[in-house]
Amino acid sequence: MTPIDFWFSIGSTYSYLTVMRLPQLADAKGIEVRWHPFNVRHVMVAQNNIPFKDKPEKTAYMWRDIARRAEGYGLSPKLPAPYPLAGLVLANEVAELGMREGWGIDYTRATYRRWFEQGEPAGEAPNLPESLREIGQDPERVMERAGSEEIVQALASATADAMTLGVFGSPSFLVGHELFWGDDRLEDAIAWAMSH
Amino acid sequence: MTPIDFWFSIGSTYSYLTVMRLPQLADAKGIEVRWHPFNVRHVMVAQNNIPFKDKPEKTAYMWRDIARRAEGYGLSPKLPAPYPLAGLVLANEVAELGMREGWGIDYTRATYRRWFEQGEPAGEAPNLPESLREIGQDPERVMERAGSEEIVQALASATADAMTLGVFGSPSFLVGHELFWGDDRLEDAIAWAMSH
Repeated sequence: MTPIDFWFSIGSTYSYLTVMRLPQLADAKGIEVRWHPFNVRHVMVAQNNIPFKDKPEKTAYMWRDIARRAEGYGLSPKLPAPYPLAGLVLANEVAELGMREGWGIDYTRATYRRWFEQGEPAGEAPNLPESLREIGQDPERVMERAGSEEIVQALASATADAMTLGVFGSPSFLVGHELFWGDDRLEDAIAWAMSH
Repeated sequence: MTPIDFWFSIGSTYSYLTVMRLPQLADAKGIEVRWHPFNVRHVMVAQNNIPFKDKPEKTAYMWRDIARRAEGYGLSPKLPAPYPLAGLVLANEVAELGMREGWGIDYTRATYRRWFEQGEPAGEAPNLPESLREIGQDPERVMERAGSEEIVQALASATADAMTLGVFGSPSFLVGHELFWGDDRLEDAIAWAMSH
């Protein structure tokens, strides 16, 4: 059994599906999952890999595809969700801080729920402070810490690590050196983790 | 039970998986599948949707992902296959002619097999004439007909139809108005076809 390194950016649309269903799936299989927020927008711009901007046909399909898959998972998003996120970087700096302090997964799920199920963009008010309050964190303290040089640098460093590891999109799953990209590869990643 | 319209381009890498496994899957479920060759490169350029060119990280992942999935389907490609295809347009003009004359599916499977399993690019010699001979077609006659104004126009017209229908990539499956994109959505398309 190999642990799964889950690389994600709050701001990725398909990552909603993974963020919502991963904890239960991993628990059921007894797999350790390590959550790594990173700045996928930085990676995509650096790699000239722009999946949806100025691509209306592909974007329309993406929302329909997410709607179908969400229904299959018993989720009820209101789609399309606001996209892209102006506050992507801040949203993930808060996640980085949260992972260090132990509330990162709860925050990520809360902010995705508000973004995809209530139509409030992540990374800004009201989503950001309300998500933090909901999980018992003080928004004022968190915002100050998330904007610190230490956390800003930590997210940039995680983003550089992601690129070194070959991660080019979100969600991505690394099982040892084996990379799986996309919510639709989560089951494959879990099977790989269980057999290696 | 709704028929499936299968839109594909010889030249698409992931379409190898679909071309190889679709006939058996559709037969097993008793689903009618209509094969539609089109020029996916034209669509992607028109929509500024360039998935792999100048994207080495994503391209490396694509080959690994195809290798893993091919193994799961019992296929044995030699990867990476030559890519992109210089003869994409001709390869699909021949497919268009073949669909009209009743040997299009056999040709598409033969040429993909040589491309992905023997390393010979589709749409040029030796792959193109050998694939035609293998399925009992005279390469000289086919090449003359495939280059005719009628067939050149037919492929261009199919490509325009694909865009009108919202098809932006290959392989795509249309079940009524419901669009599924990617070999990894084939099972979803079949399930949709069976329940509608």
